[in-house]
Amino acid sequence: MTTSSLTYDQAGVDYDKIDPLKIAAQRAAAATATQLAGHGFTEVRASRGESAYVVDVGPFYLASIVECLGSKALVADEMARLTGKSYYAGIAQDTIAMAVNDLITVGATPLVVQAYWGAGGSDWFGDAQRAQALVEGWQRACETCGVAWGGGETPALAGIVEAGRIDLAASCTGLINPKQRLSVGDKLGAGDAIVLLASSGIHANGVSLARKLVERLPQGWLTPIDAQGTTYGDALLAPTTLYSPVTEALWKAGIAPHYCANITGHGWRKLLRHPGHFTYRITQVPPVPPVLEFIAKHAGHDAQEAYSTFNMGAGFALFVAAEQAERAAEVARTQGIEAWVAGRVEVGDKQLLIEPLGLRYGDDALQLR
Amino acid sequence: MTTSSLTYDQAGVDYDKIDPLKIAAQRAAAATATQLAGHGFTEVRASRGESAYVVDVGPFYLASIVECLGSKALVADEMARLTGKSYYAGIAQDTIAMAVNDLITVGATPLVVQAYWGAGGSDWFGDAQRAQALVEGWQRACETCGVAWGGGETPALAGIVEAGRIDLAASCTGLINPKQRLSVGDKLGAGDAIVLLASSGIHANGVSLARKLVERLPQGWLTPIDAQGTTYGDALLAPTTLYSPVTEALWKAGIAPHYCANITGHGWRKLLRHPGHFTYRITQVPPVPPVLEFIAKHAGHDAQEAYSTFNMGAGFALFVAAEQAERAAEVARTQGIEAWVAGRVEVGDKQLLIEPLGLRYGDDALQLR
Repeated sequence: MTTSSLTYDQAGVDYDKIDPLKIAAQRAAAATATQLAGHGFTEVRASRGESAYVVDVGPFYLASIVECLGSKALVADEMARLTGKSYYAGIAQDTIAMAVNDLITVGATPLVVQAYWGAGGSDWFGDAQRAQALVEGWQRACETCGVAWGGGETPALAGIVEAGRIDLAASCTGLINPKQRLSVGDKLGAGDAIVLLASSGIHANGVSLARKLVERLPQGWLTPIDAQGTTYGDALLAPTTLYSPVTEALWKAGIAPHYCANITGHGWRKLLRHPGHFTYRITQVPPVPPVLEFIAKHAGHDAQEAYSTFNMGAGFALFVAAEQAERAAEVARTQGIEAWVAGRVEVGDKQLLIEPLGLRYGDDALQLR
Repeated sequence: MTTSSLTYDQAGVDYDKIDPLKIAAQRAAAATATQLAGHGFTEVRASRGESAYVVDVGPFYLASIVECLGSKALVADEMARLTGKSYYAGIAQDTIAMAVNDLITVGATPLVVQAYWGAGGSDWFGDAQRAQALVEGWQRACETCGVAWGGGETPALAGIVEAGRIDLAASCTGLINPKQRLSVGDKLGAGDAIVLLASSGIHANGVSLARKLVERLPQGWLTPIDAQGTTYGDALLAPTTLYSPVTEALWKAGIAPHYCANITGHGWRKLLRHPGHFTYRITQVPPVPPVLEFIAKHAGHDAQEAYSTFNMGAGFALFVAAEQAERAAEVARTQGIEAWVAGRVEVGDKQLLIEPLGLRYGDDALQLR
């Protein structure tokens, strides 16, 4: 087993090629905002660059998003081949989580999910067990989030999607109602507390690297990662936590987060997402899920790299008024999700300080806008 | 050149494999409608089985959808290889048309489009000309439809999407406002007129068959289809007509369609979409776009098969009060889209009669629900 460090670039995603398109698309998209005036509406400008797009339609705000799963289905396919089990119920939850967990960051209540299941050919749908797992998992995740599954698309895309594979995405529409639930950044301030919500594992970000790592493992996907013999593949496939039950329960408890960050790609650097200049001081770190500890060890990542790539046990961050922080964590726990009052927002240079680990990420660590 | 008929099954889409999953998904989706009650909302039940999903959120209805392009991008890729041109501005319009033209059938004003561009790897985005065409075409189509481009996803999906290919989809969210614009079927009645709106060509449905046909053409994609030397590939790549400017102009002109059908897969059988029992009598057929005439001829389709597969010159159908029919067609023409008062809805067996061609499609011709 080699001990050289495995980076994200080696895992095959080259952001230098994608970023110019992303920037061009963002500019073109921003230019279309004026179209809403023709209907008597306006965009919430601060939502550009946030995780969901928000339009003011009068009595409430409308939020919408489309998100894809990424490459986690490839792990499910490998594990199905090795174990004979179907992992697609979990994969369905992962896909919905990608959309819902982003949508709620702006204060929205998710209402409708649409399914996009692009298969590599009609044959994909011929495996009844797998198809049924996808349907059942999708329904269950919708029920957990209190959303209606509106419909969707199940195209057979031979020649575009690879044979035997499926490209999964979800769109989600929600309302910010009442309008004071809107959280697009203007409410965040020094003195706010940072409440971290537990992740269930890798979720669906950093999976390309996790897949690449398999080549280094003598037993591959079936390598045990703990004393109980949980395999690497099974651990990776733990479904992503759905956080909308927490944000809905918070509102019912009278707590409106000042800001939220869904901790996905770029790991904890997502805590720097807000455009303002603040220091984010973390004084307590959650326990690291065994699968992420395992990856860090075998990929040769130090803590600096691991926390900038993976969620490391914190899948979602709530920024709330300091006096509501403990109560917010309790509300999360009533929804079955562990939570920690993990730090605070301070006046200072834009940086993230993870004190227990002696880590610092500066202003240049995250370039999203 | 063989003269045997080329059917859709031969083109590689096997609905027998997809349909059981679709039915299971539709049932599971319908079961989630009760989730909306927790937010004080209800679904518009009649929208299940229609082209977009509708929720009653109080002051207005919320409509949403996700739709994919299908395989038309493969035609663009082939033609780019042969001509050096980029066709992705048109492909962008096609993708948005798939979503917007469905959304407006329920009476919705489209407000926000989200882009889903799943590439076979980072390399796809490295072709700056092609990427720029996609961005510009997407922006222009949004502007034509008066929608804001909210954002989207540009994942690199090596191992899922084929290298060098892209899986394109769009989600669209809109409002039905005021609520009397809702058209989910209850307003359709005997005596209503059928107004057909012109298509620009194949749009993005029936493309698998059109691609398969290339094997039969001695000059392939570059086969001329008319006296001007327009190639088969160029003709296929005419961007799909965007119909939302028509439906918006109709509303401003005081015309609320009783029902709408987006004529996509299954061709004119989509005129049988409404769940009620009516006879649809067509007394005038629009001119057939040369590319569709060409396909019918070379695929060996008779009129019965051609009209049940392709739009044959009619991309969208409006069902309006008879006394508003001529005015509706005029409104469409002011938006640059040719229109014909082509027939009427009658009491009778559920069937579509295309009288000028002597065609009949019965109750069993379209199974969507």
